Amino acid sequence: MSPDAQSSNQPSKKDVSIGAYLLGRLKQLGVKHVFGQPGDFNMGFLDLIEDDEGIEWIGCCNEMNAGYAADGVNRVGVLVTTFGVGELSAMNAVAGAFSEMVPVVHIVGTPSTESQSQGALLHHTLGNGDFKIYHKMYENITVAQTVLSHHNAKDEIDRVLRECYIHSRPVYISIPTDICVKKIAADLSQPLVLTIPENVHEVEYAAINRVIGRIHKSANTIVLIDACASRHDISKELLDFINKTGFPFFTSPMGKSIIPENHPLFGGIYIGSVSEPHVKREVEEADLIISIGAIRSDFNTGGFTYHVSQAKTIELCYNRIKVFFATYEGVSMKHALPKITACIERMPSSTISPPYQHNLLEDDVKDQRITQNWFWHEVSSTLLQENDIIIGEMGTSVFGLMDIRFPPGSTFIGQILYGSIGYSVGACLGASLAATNVKERRRVCLFVGDGSFQVTAQEISTIIRHNLNPVIFLINNNGFTIERMLHGIKRKYNDIAQWKFDQTLEYFGGSNEVGRTVKLATKSDFKSFVSSILPATPSRIQFVEVMMDKYDAPRALIGTASFTAEEHMKEKVLPMLHEKLHKKEVSGEQ
Amino acid sequence: MSPDAQSSNQPSKKDVSIGAYLLGRLKQLGVKHVFGQPGDFNMGFLDLIEDDEGIEWIGCCNEMNAGYAADGVNRVGVLVTTFGVGELSAMNAVAGAFSEMVPVVHIVGTPSTESQSQGALLHHTLGNGDFKIYHKMYENITVAQTVLSHHNAKDEIDRVLRECYIHSRPVYISIPTDICVKKIAADLSQPLVLTIPENVHEVEYAAINRVIGRIHKSANTIVLIDACASRHDISKELLDFINKTGFPFFTSPMGKSIIPENHPLFGGIYIGSVSEPHVKREVEEADLIISIGAIRSDFNTGGFTYHVSQAKTIELCYNRIKVFFATYEGVSMKHALPKITACIERMPSSTISPPYQHNLLEDDVKDQRITQNWFWHEVSSTLLQENDIIIGEMGTSVFGLMDIRFPPGSTFIGQILYGSIGYSVGACLGASLAATNVKERRRVCLFVGDGSFQVTAQEISTIIRHNLNPVIFLINNNGFTIERMLHGIKRKYNDIAQWKFDQTLEYFGGSNEVGRTVKLATKSDFKSFVSSILPATPSRIQFVEVMMDKYDAPRALIGTASFTAEEHMKEKVLPMLHEKLHKKEVSGEQ
Repeated sequence: MSPDAQSSNQPSKKDVSIGAYLLGRLKQLGVKHVFGQPGDFNMGFLDLIEDDEGIEWIGCCNEMNAGYAADGVNRVGVLVTTFGVGELSAMNAVAGAFSEMVPVVHIVGTPSTESQSQGALLHHTLGNGDFKIYHKMYENITVAQTVLSHHNAKDEIDRVLRECYIHSRPVYISIPTDICVKKIAADLSQPLVLTIPENVHEVEYAAINRVIGRIHKSANTIVLIDACASRHDISKELLDFINKTGFPFFTSPMGKSIIPENHPLFGGIYIGSVSEPHVKREVEEADLIISIGAIRSDFNTGGFTYHVSQAKTIELCYNRIKVFFATYEGVSMKHALPKITACIERMPSSTISPPYQHNLLEDDVKDQRITQNWFWHEVSSTLLQENDIIIGEMGTSVFGLMDIRFPPGSTFIGQILYGSIGYSVGACLGASLAATNVKERRRVCLFVGDGSFQVTAQEISTIIRHNLNPVIFLINNNGFTIERMLHGIKRKYNDIAQWKFDQTLEYFGGSNEVGRTVKLATKSDFKSFVSSILPATPSRIQFVEVMMDKYDAPRALIGTASFTAEEHMKEKVLPMLHEKLHKKEVSGEQ
Repeated sequence: MSPDAQSSNQPSKKDVSIGAYLLGRLKQLGVKHVFGQPGDFNMGFLDLIEDDEGIEWIGCCNEMNAGYAADGVNRVGVLVTTFGVGELSAMNAVAGAFSEMVPVVHIVGTPSTESQSQGALLHHTLGNGDFKIYHKMYENITVAQTVLSHHNAKDEIDRVLRECYIHSRPVYISIPTDICVKKIAADLSQPLVLTIPENVHEVEYAAINRVIGRIHKSANTIVLIDACASRHDISKELLDFINKTGFPFFTSPMGKSIIPENHPLFGGIYIGSVSEPHVKREVEEADLIISIGAIRSDFNTGGFTYHVSQAKTIELCYNRIKVFFATYEGVSMKHALPKITACIERMPSSTISPPYQHNLLEDDVKDQRITQNWFWHEVSSTLLQENDIIIGEMGTSVFGLMDIRFPPGSTFIGQILYGSIGYSVGACLGASLAATNVKERRRVCLFVGDGSFQVTAQEISTIIRHNLNPVIFLINNNGFTIERMLHGIKRKYNDIAQWKFDQTLEYFGGSNEVGRTVKLATKSDFKSFVSSILPATPSRIQFVEVMMDKYDAPRALIGTASFTAEEHMKEKVLPMLHEKLHKKEVSGEQ
């Protein structure tokens, strides 16, 4: 994520409307699309967007979906809503971006300064004359907030956008209708300052010294990469460190693909006790673990089953370094890591096993039905390609994906921490638009279960309307399998309504010619479909319904559920599913 | 809204789980359906619901829709969500219920007491160990909140349900997973106390005296009824007052149908300057206006264009009476109004004109195209029947409905104050289920525009899944006509994607046999459709797509926009539309 450079010859200051200034700054952050819904308090701002050559308005079906789309662009995303009804509809999406550390700028069109100061009983209010209440609610889920006025607009816009970028978290900008068109003298040719402050020299020096000392004492060091390494943009620094030291590295599920998985030093995915046995052993038996950007949430750690002692762990975070039990506050890894790399030579380390060793099971190959385990193996070995954007919905999809090999250059989008179902369909819209920003349009592959799909399904129409071309795999397994694994496996509340999923493109696209729909019930169906789309990125949207059993789940989900499910499930159901997984493996594609 | 009487012979106290106690109390409030989505922190509670004979779980496609459904039952509605992702998705729906004063009980399943006290990094959190943050956000949009514990559960459940009922506003109940199944000694045969406290005698006496004195001095008194009369449950008391005094009454748009519109004293809908001229004259020229339960929001008052002096207005509210400029705080109309009625005789009053006088215009009858004006006349004169539940979406629908005659016994559901688009489809689910609670299933008619429909469209599948049978009119006019009237009439951001709306039932119902779909392009089409379904309530869902022009709008919307739209619209566009409305009227059906 880096802002587009702007080398402009504009005169130093000129009159520009506040709305236009905001758009100018957003474009400097690389923003090309703005997501949202029109409402009478934001349409003045939408006029500016619609008339702007460099930025495109993407009207969504509702604001939650628009929020997910803004999250899915995988750099600074922008969401525009209207006062009250719009901004509250988007609350869950913005909270998700806050939790997962995604930089989303949420711009809310609000009633005019005059109406607000009068406490007018306008529509979209709570009927109590309080115009600050929604803003106040947003303080809980954004890292900076502002209400623009004629006086403060320039400084405030710069401040909150900087906070958004630096902390990689959502911010909230309220623009009253009358303020949007007010002119200010402003100089867009002065770029936003987006660098984070240097570390305090003495503290950083002490921390680095300690880190290097520990590294030199260890005979067997591994690196464990997690999500904050990408959120705080140190993948390049990290790759340099790994290449120079020669340390094997493992990643958490949320850390997948930050360093390409075809790297010779890649050891696999560490998910605590849910890991493949060889990965678990290699991580937990290391002398020293250098943990980069950790987010130790339940589903990212196999249900809190890390067996990694703090007494042999060095943690690098965006705002501190911790060596065993000593914390060096305020030392950012962004500045410290290159200095560590510079001070260290290639180190001896133990050899590691190939990262992915789990093979197909008897159950997976005994007939033509598509099992979860077979499906994810196949996705990894035959479908995914270099530079794919891979989106996984919370559910069997994300647990299936966390356990398979991703191709080099790929990007992984999912909500393993926040876990809001329906996220992936909105995110697919954002990611598909972002994929058009590069010369060779990247392919987007979305994996979503039927229950989650129903949450936000209508956004498929926006994907179609903008001629985007993701490959969408809808896993039709009649409901919430992830919930079944945790509680109430046979309960009706985990069932869903059956839709005619194979009419999705026709219904939401207004025509039966907008894309291609296929329904896959057998392994041969899947193989034919994959060979039909390879190797090129399909030119039209592909909607692929894959039939699976409602009680089947990927290995990592069954494993995680074994630690987090209700007692009945832990005692009775999951052991049976586990047993199935431990049947004699047969040779598979991988 | 009144709770079901409970005359039970249960022993005075017995052990019951906290979840079961809550369900017991809800059933005493008349609750038959609970709306929501399963999540791993609420499934223990869902087990109890699924196993309960007297209450039904209605799994929705997402929580916002579920919140709208709970709002639409038109008595105490119940919404169950999961921690974080679920409750935040429902935020806009609950805020709408707060604004519009609808009693919704929002029950959130939260992580176990132990996980919360440890600050565990669970999924659905913001990753900061703060388990109180969502609850805190909800304090802004609910009238009472609680976190249940083993110790407080019984009292707290009773307290918040009482607050919900008395204030007719949402409440928030958080149940940690471990608490739901804990047993308490509780006596469900002791009913909840739901009456509001008596007024302080002296203050009430002074207020009533003043009111009666003013009434006796007036030669020409009218009553103006608004939404709080139904929200605070005084329609019976009000009807007695009107019948006894013989005062003509008018209603605001939000006050429609609280007293049947076929009442001989009904004078019409008062919408400030947007009113029919005779209504405006009769209200504004009265000597004395008795205003009951006023909510003077913009869209309820023709854009704040009441011309009714406070110096001749008596206001009765749920918690105070105001006579001209003197306020009597704490005097509730619920107790005071019957006493006023008892003290007063039939009064002389001026004759009033028939309530609805606007006729069809030349444009409406010149050809077969369906105009907005023609459509709403026709809905009123041929479609609507006694006891219908009429739901109008914010947009042309609600403005069309606010201006037409409703049949006796009908109920009007719409969000004229909060105005969140998409509300009506969710509300239709709730209302349709509530309509099955009475012996002769009431007919539900939903009117929704295409843009609003897309916000929450998937909930049609839940309506189908439960074999409900509303008549759904989808106004297909290619986008947000209400927004076009206010700003950017030709802007692309007010356009929407075109769906195959005529495949709605088939797509969401999973079959082409779940109901009937018709597409109406002409007046004859509409008339044939209406005669095909009358007089019985259809046994299956009817999905009726009505084609209309994107620049056509109902009279009341054009009128309101004339006061609230942007300058360009006020100066250029709306006068043209207005002019059309003032062309010579032709004789119409009404």
